[in-house]
Amino acid sequence: MSKDYTGMWEGLGLNLENHSGLLSVLSDAYKGIYLSQKKRPKAMEYFDFVISEVHGLRIEEILDAKAKGRKVVGTFCVFVPEEIVLAAGGVYIGLCAGAEVGSDEAEKFIPRNTCALIKAFMGFKLSGLCPYVESADLIVGETTCDGKKKAYEIFNEITKKVYVMEVPHMKNEEDKKLWLSEVKRFKEKMEDLSGKKITVDALKEAGGIVNAKRKALKRLSSLRSADPAPVSGLDALLVNQISFYDDPLRFTEMTNRLCDELEERVKQGAGVAQKGAPRVLISGSPMAIPNWKLHTIVEGSGAVVVGEESCIGERNHRELLDEGFLTVDEALQKIASRYLSIDCACFTPNNERMDNINSLVKDLKAGGVIHYSLQFCTPYMMEAYKAEKAVGNVPFLRIETDYSMEDMGQLKTRVEAFLEMMG
Amino acid sequence: MSKDYTGMWEGLGLNLENHSGLLSVLSDAYKGIYLSQKKRPKAMEYFDFVISEVHGLRIEEILDAKAKGRKVVGTFCVFVPEEIVLAAGGVYIGLCAGAEVGSDEAEKFIPRNTCALIKAFMGFKLSGLCPYVESADLIVGETTCDGKKKAYEIFNEITKKVYVMEVPHMKNEEDKKLWLSEVKRFKEKMEDLSGKKITVDALKEAGGIVNAKRKALKRLSSLRSADPAPVSGLDALLVNQISFYDDPLRFTEMTNRLCDELEERVKQGAGVAQKGAPRVLISGSPMAIPNWKLHTIVEGSGAVVVGEESCIGERNHRELLDEGFLTVDEALQKIASRYLSIDCACFTPNNERMDNINSLVKDLKAGGVIHYSLQFCTPYMMEAYKAEKAVGNVPFLRIETDYSMEDMGQLKTRVEAFLEMMG
Repeated sequence: MSKDYTGMWEGLGLNLENHSGLLSVLSDAYKGIYLSQKKRPKAMEYFDFVISEVHGLRIEEILDAKAKGRKVVGTFCVFVPEEIVLAAGGVYIGLCAGAEVGSDEAEKFIPRNTCALIKAFMGFKLSGLCPYVESADLIVGETTCDGKKKAYEIFNEITKKVYVMEVPHMKNEEDKKLWLSEVKRFKEKMEDLSGKKITVDALKEAGGIVNAKRKALKRLSSLRSADPAPVSGLDALLVNQISFYDDPLRFTEMTNRLCDELEERVKQGAGVAQKGAPRVLISGSPMAIPNWKLHTIVEGSGAVVVGEESCIGERNHRELLDEGFLTVDEALQKIASRYLSIDCACFTPNNERMDNINSLVKDLKAGGVIHYSLQFCTPYMMEAYKAEKAVGNVPFLRIETDYSMEDMGQLKTRVEAFLEMMG
Repeated sequence: MSKDYTGMWEGLGLNLENHSGLLSVLSDAYKGIYLSQKKRPKAMEYFDFVISEVHGLRIEEILDAKAKGRKVVGTFCVFVPEEIVLAAGGVYIGLCAGAEVGSDEAEKFIPRNTCALIKAFMGFKLSGLCPYVESADLIVGETTCDGKKKAYEIFNEITKKVYVMEVPHMKNEEDKKLWLSEVKRFKEKMEDLSGKKITVDALKEAGGIVNAKRKALKRLSSLRSADPAPVSGLDALLVNQISFYDDPLRFTEMTNRLCDELEERVKQGAGVAQKGAPRVLISGSPMAIPNWKLHTIVEGSGAVVVGEESCIGERNHRELLDEGFLTVDEALQKIASRYLSIDCACFTPNNERMDNINSLVKDLKAGGVIHYSLQFCTPYMMEAYKAEKAVGNVPFLRIETDYSMEDMGQLKTRVEAFLEMMG
């Protein structure tokens, strides 16, 4: 941390003692996992700094924005249209959900057999450890899985600021209408919250900002197709994770700066692993900060993770918004259509995802796929069956795990055997 | 069995050896649980007979109907409009899903952490043990939970006859439109399947048949409000379970005959338990045949189950169809509206259910509520929290279990402690 934020955290109602413990664990983990990596790009220094200030400077910025009348909107899902939040002058942020925190408290409200991500967002709030949730004026949930859908009802009792968008189960004509109406309803909600009318110009500007961020992430993604890979999967995952927290303009600039450096590496044939090192695509459930567990295991075993077919990854940036709109209504239609193209396992059927996995395997020259599901994440656990069939002869390993470290040894053994099999 | 059905089962492709084993286990369980009950109504003999012939005579009837050109439609959920199936001349049946069968086979397709009901419907099919699924021309699924939604995709690969109706997550105007369009799409599907145009007269007749069945079940439900209870929870549960399998006209007649007898008992102050015995409402996940586990424990501990706030129970018969329609379109609107009124935990929010639980506690004079969730049934597991708050001071016990008998001892201990606490 660059300075003492105790007063700010106290003002947000955090549990100072536990929070200090959390930051210390996070800092140690980050040193052990991230800073110990070899041949890191110089441009990762910025992201190291962001992590070191993720509960500090970034929160200060957010509180400054709030003081200037901007509204802070927290989310847990890539279905919440960032363009609308920005067009209403809002700040769009992901909420804490990536660490085993406050499980005992959470289990007073939700079942033990709940996925780690949901248990974590309840746990973070109940333990007073997430400055983002405390800063948020509105928390926007969605209906992408049974667990979140029902947990948001309880989360709203606790926080009194949850708003839910209905993501349909299919992508038929009536679903498109329903989703468009949800996008319009959200636009109205943001207008109410901010007291500002959302204009087509504001949507144009927001669309440009968010698309630029997506393009930078897409650029990073495609650079990982080089062999040797110019950046570790851990670092690329981190950049994707930070895309949910950082100021979008600055983030885009810094990600493009990283990509410039990686392009140089690719030209020179330089990379983080040996040329020919096993290349793995990780596919499935999202990995929120600081969930670096599987990447740590895979890359600690001599392979390189070349892509994340995940909400923290491809699902967040694959599709750009069509910026060719002239009215607010047209913009909302294009926004609705862009978000409904997401290949989330909440849809039935979800064949697009199968095609996308295969394209990624090919484009990123992955030699194997590790399908990662959070335990009790039914949509991805179930869809693993179809994903395995879809990839055909490409080696495929299914993993179900949570945030605990208890199965690290067992997972390492399975991953090593898999990498050996990949050959 | 009244005769040898081996040829019929062979024709359906059942695994004869395993099937014979299953029937023998079922028959023993039924004797132990049902036939050993004291003071059973005479009219339960019919339902005993139905169970003894559930894979025999009833399947023969269904195959006879098929031979006459009627289409057989199998379902797992109360959201599939029975009126439309009947109006197309179809036979509407529930599919096997209530016993721990074929789990190893099922786990090749779906995750271990899947609710027992889903694992069972996969297991029954994969082990060749369900004559209903083999007789069905169409299996109609729905999107009421992540587990079923995604499992139906795989089930369709296996059976090639799954059709899915989209049940929305909310009950707003756009949801009503979507659901109405789903009801219309299903009507067209049934017309295609049967080769028959569905007329308003056929819908009138079907509406009358299904409403008469619902009224008989409602009559049974309200008779259970008497103290002493005139019928055991086990028997009432069985009648509700059989309502998904039996010929509706015959079922209605036989259920009304049972109710006549129970009315007589109520007049005479006679019942199955002592007046003043602890009265329990069971609320939550559905209990498919032969899932009699919790009722067996509760009634074996000296209490009486007076109601099932469940899909096999109140959720299936609470609302009648408004028969006041003059056109097919009006009928479909009223059907859509009737089914969308169901208080399933798949909806967010689902406040109606809280009101309904409280009404049932009051009407049935229940002294306590046991909230029953199948393990991994996220919607009901999560909603238990709200249900517990909703009932206020009424004693409330949460149970999560599956179909295995391993936790019988532990559940019995918990239930006994709960009944004692109810006082």
